[in-house]
Amino acid sequence: MDVPTTGRDYLSMAIEIATTNVLNAGGPFGALVVAPDGRTFEGVNRVTASNDPTAHAEVVAIRAAASGLGTFDLSGCTLYSSCEPCPMCLASALWARIERVVFAADRHDAAHAGFDDAVFYDYFAQDADRALMPVVREVPGAEAHLRPFRAWGELETRVDY
Amino acid sequence: MDVPTTGRDYLSMAIEIATTNVLNAGGPFGALVVAPDGRTFEGVNRVTASNDPTAHAEVVAIRAAASGLGTFDLSGCTLYSSCEPCPMCLASALWARIERVVFAADRHDAAHAGFDDAVFYDYFAQDADRALMPVVREVPGAEAHLRPFRAWGELETRVDY
Repeated sequence: MDVPTTGRDYLSMAIEIATTNVLNAGGPFGALVVAPDGRTFEGVNRVTASNDPTAHAEVVAIRAAASGLGTFDLSGCTLYSSCEPCPMCLASALWARIERVVFAADRHDAAHAGFDDAVFYDYFAQDADRALMPVVREVPGAEAHLRPFRAWGELETRVDY
Repeated sequence: MDVPTTGRDYLSMAIEIATTNVLNAGGPFGALVVAPDGRTFEGVNRVTASNDPTAHAEVVAIRAAASGLGTFDLSGCTLYSSCEPCPMCLASALWARIERVVFAADRHDAAHAGFDDAVFYDYFAQDADRALMPVVREVPGAEAHLRPFRAWGELETRVDY
């Protein structure tokens, strides 16, 4: 493929690496972070290949971009994905301050192929009961749970983010 | 600290590593994945230290557990966190099939310390407008976007998950 120059080219590239990844023991997902200066960082799904449940294409691309650009702040970058990102990938992109997300196949296409995220989207809906994975608070006595924040507040060398 | 045996001990351990991490150039967050057989896997926040926006304590602990146990499926494991997990961490735990999540400080304690996730929770609320980070679909012609899934469907060696 020629060097991509348009959003559609980047999306086609994400689809191409997703397809290639299937033949390389990975899932059928590919993503690309494009920096404002045109540098690109690829990611493909390696969940089963790497035994890493967080290794979705988008997360892998975000980690590669942050590492390659030497910053955890990807402001101004666009994330292209072969498929609609799940909540984990969207939240990762939010934390990375990705500016815009563009995807090709949608969640219904993915579900049709056996990748159904509906239960994940439901989990974050307002008033979801979270029966699927209960999240409970425990306070281990006194104000122990505030100790990390107090240490943080007292640290003069901290990097706010 | 003695070897933890109760949930409260694990939570105290998560708080302890969160506090220690502050003095090690990390954020004030710690987490622990506890496997059914009692093996534990730690994670601390390394976002700024590693230039990895996804390196929240919970994600790091999940990745360590999956790597250590040699599986992307952490069914039966409990995730202990010094602080209420954000949507990225919860979604990562869902994908990992974590059974239960227990946390100490809550999102209000975190906000008070300068770590406010409210905008992230809002992003996933029903009917959120996503103005913060637009997510748009583009279809690059014909049925190109379905190619990865077709390759997947034709692959006899695929590992379903």
